Amino acid sequence: MGINLSNFISSKSKNARMMDFQDLDHLDGLSISVVSANLYKDNRDDLSMFYFRDGANYASVYTQSKILSENIKWNLNQKNKKIFSLLVNTRNANAFTGKQGYESLKKLAHLISKKLNEKQIEDENTPKKITPKEIIFGCTGTIGEFYPYEKIVDQIPNLINKIRYTQNKFIWMKAALGIMTTDTKPKLAMEECKIGNEKIKIYGIAKGSGMIHPNMATTLAYIFTDASLSNDILNRLLKKNITTTFNAISCDGDTSTNDMATIFATNKIKNSPIKSINDKKIRNFDNALNNVLLNLAKRVVSDGEGASKFITIKVEKCKNEIDAKKIAFSIASSTLVKTAIAGEDPNWGRIVMAIGKAGPKINLKKLSIKFGNIKIVQDGKLHQAYDEKLVANYMKNENIDLNIDITTGNKNFTVYTMDLTNKYIEINSDYRS
Amino acid sequence: MGINLSNFISSKSKNARMMDFQDLDHLDGLSISVVSANLYKDNRDDLSMFYFRDGANYASVYTQSKILSENIKWNLNQKNKKIFSLLVNTRNANAFTGKQGYESLKKLAHLISKKLNEKQIEDENTPKKITPKEIIFGCTGTIGEFYPYEKIVDQIPNLINKIRYTQNKFIWMKAALGIMTTDTKPKLAMEECKIGNEKIKIYGIAKGSGMIHPNMATTLAYIFTDASLSNDILNRLLKKNITTTFNAISCDGDTSTNDMATIFATNKIKNSPIKSINDKKIRNFDNALNNVLLNLAKRVVSDGEGASKFITIKVEKCKNEIDAKKIAFSIASSTLVKTAIAGEDPNWGRIVMAIGKAGPKINLKKLSIKFGNIKIVQDGKLHQAYDEKLVANYMKNENIDLNIDITTGNKNFTVYTMDLTNKYIEINSDYRS
Repeated sequence: MGINLSNFISSKSKNARMMDFQDLDHLDGLSISVVSANLYKDNRDDLSMFYFRDGANYASVYTQSKILSENIKWNLNQKNKKIFSLLVNTRNANAFTGKQGYESLKKLAHLISKKLNEKQIEDENTPKKITPKEIIFGCTGTIGEFYPYEKIVDQIPNLINKIRYTQNKFIWMKAALGIMTTDTKPKLAMEECKIGNEKIKIYGIAKGSGMIHPNMATTLAYIFTDASLSNDILNRLLKKNITTTFNAISCDGDTSTNDMATIFATNKIKNSPIKSINDKKIRNFDNALNNVLLNLAKRVVSDGEGASKFITIKVEKCKNEIDAKKIAFSIASSTLVKTAIAGEDPNWGRIVMAIGKAGPKINLKKLSIKFGNIKIVQDGKLHQAYDEKLVANYMKNENIDLNIDITTGNKNFTVYTMDLTNKYIEINSDYRS
Repeated sequence: MGINLSNFISSKSKNARMMDFQDLDHLDGLSISVVSANLYKDNRDDLSMFYFRDGANYASVYTQSKILSENIKWNLNQKNKKIFSLLVNTRNANAFTGKQGYESLKKLAHLISKKLNEKQIEDENTPKKITPKEIIFGCTGTIGEFYPYEKIVDQIPNLINKIRYTQNKFIWMKAALGIMTTDTKPKLAMEECKIGNEKIKIYGIAKGSGMIHPNMATTLAYIFTDASLSNDILNRLLKKNITTTFNAISCDGDTSTNDMATIFATNKIKNSPIKSINDKKIRNFDNALNNVLLNLAKRVVSDGEGASKFITIKVEKCKNEIDAKKIAFSIASSTLVKTAIAGEDPNWGRIVMAIGKAGPKINLKKLSIKFGNIKIVQDGKLHQAYDEKLVANYMKNENIDLNIDITTGNKNFTVYTMDLTNKYIEINSDYRS
């Protein structure tokens, strides 16, 4: 699993300083509490509550699967303007659990809202009348197993008891660990940016691509900001930026019943109101959000099961972005390409095959392929200086860049994936033995 | 590789007797000659000529890849009504070879037609004026390597010298071996049927799914019949039957630059003329052709790299065939499903995932899943008698049947695939070490 991720941590947004997730600290308006509900056998943290004391604006994107887990159904049914809490459990996906799964969430939402209302009175905050509809859920783990309502409900008082109104890097790390299933590493990212003159934080955690019996590659990503932004603006920003980040990664081409990415804005920083995502004042935030999402998405790929290499596939100069995306995903999904890279084999023939089968029309005379900076194919012909030894040497790198020029237009798309190793097969077939 | 194929050999067409490829013998109007052109280092047969002394009607389907090998381009450019010879070479795909590749074929076609004309005079047959446009080519092997024109052209006299006007099972076996690349087994199939009162033979050979550096999963299938059928009828029959056979198999989801399936009719049996594929007299031939194609397609899958299990995925009762096909291929392409089956794990959660991500809308309450005859999910719920031990035991079989009932209509589609094992990764990544 030794992929070096140091290259993900740098920030591309101009006025953001270089930062590590070690820098994650307090984000005003949010409280995090994490406990073990003994959903696993080893007492690890498996239940995380994110509580917004004054509510949070929010936007979500969910799995495109036609079979949805019960928590995604619950979340889709809540049309309220603010969210007061997100509860995330691991070990059980609450998918294929039917009425038992859905009713469990309903009861949990009632209890959580009731307990949070009591807590607000107790803390002498101005009490809000939090309703069950202002609670949403993230679930990940086994599908088709009875939802462990009893174990979870027992821990709600404990979670609420642990609420503190300041965070530090340790609680962020605890949350990132608490939402993991078979991930081998916690996934955190952050950026700071500005909206007008106001300094804004964007923090994020994610899990993904680790799987456990019966094995869903659920991706969860939760982004938190202290900016003041409406649900509509959050929704537009999330949809726009998810396309080139979480929707530009491929581990094994599978999609779960539970995928979920949500952004929450606590509105604690009183930046000037943003009414359009074309407003120049939001540009810096937009870039920073893209960095956070891309950073997390890359961490999910690099922790992909059995991954030994991180692969970046840039398809450039296409007629339109859809074509570029199709070609990039055709390469990223090809088991032949991914096994060749695992074997450190500069097998450009397989890349050609994957480009050909992608669908969009190719003018072979204009096709160019580079591995890193090494020209392999130029104008549809093997490059005159092609030296297989040089390319074979390049393949030993942990980060492999495949650069494809279609040269029929000016649209690009980049996809991130990892190689396909024996380890993947072992993890996914041999775990019973 | 020990998948037992005995179940493929039986014939479903009512009046065809049960037969093995050992029964392949003479097919009138065809001559086969096979030699080694030393394209491999070990002197194996690698060049096969199929010669039709009075020409053959024919129809082809080719790869859907947008990058075509030079031989596919050549074949597409020939619009003549009859074919006199098909030349198949292995080891070199003649793809990404540009002008050198195409011009080589042109020169070969000229030489072959010239030599065949000489041969016809020599044999005191009525000489036909065979033109280069009546020669087509099958190529499979490495892409992007210089086409070995010299080695091939040197063997043309030898191939023509070997022409005999009768075949037996040994020459069929030699041809099936001669078109192999890394296949581990030759692939042959046959049926006998009737058109009207006339007994008709349908013989076929295929290769596929074995790959060699730089590794194309080229599928080649050649079907020969002694029936009298027009190009139009052959074309309609081939297109119709390829859908449920070669276009219903998936090894690793990759498509080559060279895929080719062709049917040749020597017109030696003077059956009554067929003007429409709806003619009742062609029904028996239609079924028999489907059997031959399906038999060959199954052999390709079961020889898929690293395959330890043969998987049949039946998706039934869909609104339309396109939906059924999408769902079946989504399951067949899922590496998670295929690794679970390799691990003999009754992981129905992964099947649910693959159904969900396929695209078509699913009414969960109507979904049923069976492994073989064992009910897993019924009406969207885990079956009351579900016994994991029973299913785990079923998974030990070499032939795994996944039966999915969508229950929203009456259209079905069946896809054939194999499991994904460590062996696949080894073959495709480790061959340099």
